Amino acid sequence: MKIDVLSLFPDMFAPMRQSIIGKAVDRGDLDFSVTDFRDYTTNKHNNVDDYPFGGGAGMLLTPQPIFDALEAVKKASPDQSAGHVILLDPAGKKFDHHDAKRLAGYDHLTFIAGHYEGYDERIKTLVDEELSLGDYVLTGGELASMVMIDATVRFIPNVLGNAESAEGDSFADGLLEYPQYTRPADFRGLTVPEVLTSGNHGKIKEWRLKEALKKTYLRRPDLLENRQFTNEERDLLDDIKSELAEDQS
Amino acid sequence: MKIDVLSLFPDMFAPMRQSIIGKAVDRGDLDFSVTDFRDYTTNKHNNVDDYPFGGGAGMLLTPQPIFDALEAVKKASPDQSAGHVILLDPAGKKFDHHDAKRLAGYDHLTFIAGHYEGYDERIKTLVDEELSLGDYVLTGGELASMVMIDATVRFIPNVLGNAESAEGDSFADGLLEYPQYTRPADFRGLTVPEVLTSGNHGKIKEWRLKEALKKTYLRRPDLLENRQFTNEERDLLDDIKSELAEDQS
Repeated sequence: MKIDVLSLFPDMFAPMRQSIIGKAVDRGDLDFSVTDFRDYTTNKHNNVDDYPFGGGAGMLLTPQPIFDALEAVKKASPDQSAGHVILLDPAGKKFDHHDAKRLAGYDHLTFIAGHYEGYDERIKTLVDEELSLGDYVLTGGELASMVMIDATVRFIPNVLGNAESAEGDSFADGLLEYPQYTRPADFRGLTVPEVLTSGNHGKIKEWRLKEALKKTYLRRPDLLENRQFTNEERDLLDDIKSELAEDQS
Repeated sequence: MKIDVLSLFPDMFAPMRQSIIGKAVDRGDLDFSVTDFRDYTTNKHNNVDDYPFGGGAGMLLTPQPIFDALEAVKKASPDQSAGHVILLDPAGKKFDHHDAKRLAGYDHLTFIAGHYEGYDERIKTLVDEELSLGDYVLTGGELASMVMIDATVRFIPNVLGNAESAEGDSFADGLLEYPQYTRPADFRGLTVPEVLTSGNHGKIKEWRLKEALKKTYLRRPDLLENRQFTNEERDLLDDIKSELAEDQS
């Protein structure tokens, strides 16, 4: 997969050279590059922003450097395309697990990371979709694009060492993850639930499913709304509800 | 404000030395430090993870290095506290604009960034709250913590050069931002809406409010659900609905 980012702060992308993403780049599974669109300004002072028409606080990114930087990305690409072009914007569609999986299906993604107050609306004529990380505002799109890239790259075959991992993650099966424990069984007086050291694999499986259901029911009931429950899940959820009702009375 | 992060990948925090966050650090408005909890392992091989009790794929972060690294953060702090301790977890409360504003009210925040498959549940006894960036899984909590720090730090007085900015952002007034334009008025045939170059400030204000309402109504109707509309907003929204109905027929 090829991922391009247009940004004014190429040094912010240091995390992409680390950890699992860095390894994917080293192995050649991911071709990642950042284009500093300040390099494409045609004005004397290399300005990338200007005052908004109609007044108001702050500066806006002007269209010219971004239009021309995207053109350069296209020219540098073997198929003369920037692939699927994404603009990071707090008003965009909220990025989730399904988007990560969907984006992993493209051969080439280009993210446009704005910065400062905003950008000229005409930049949107270049993009295929607008995505947002969530309902908050960031200093720039750099961190947001890295989060999306990290979540997406996990779904590219071979990127995670352990093939089981991305599909076994939270959300993949529609439930939050059950609590997990590792050694020591007694850490400074905090002990591990007995069932996990019992060696009884049937009981362990049931305990985990029940804990996952319980956590999801308590914290994210929305995730259960359209779930196709198995009979076992339905029985466990009934148990959970009775236990919680008992706890309350 | 003091912000600590416990992480295995201190180099991933390079973005915190850039842009607005970097400037806040340089000015002394933000005291940011990352503690590598691998430095606090007591085992011979500096291992930070181990197999899960009860079996399963992947490795879990063991409690000892994180417990001891947090102790070190406390000891290094003038008030011998880690402040408000946040664990990054996809099952946590979904971080939003209100959380950013709320977290900006603390003098000291400590983020625990997990990595790999997960962590021993007993680590949760150390934390005040669990936060999630959204419904997707990341390679680690590093990027998630940086996003939360960026969104939070914007609300610290003086951090944004322009005082108007954080409160004028998307979400701050409950509406998505109206489209903005800068020079040139005609960029390669793409022109700016006439009203913005009219000099009529009343008309510009009304156009912007209407565009913000329209965008919010079309993309994020949920944001309008509990809104206290002004009379002007209510009239504009009625106009928007009629215009959209006309467009469809």
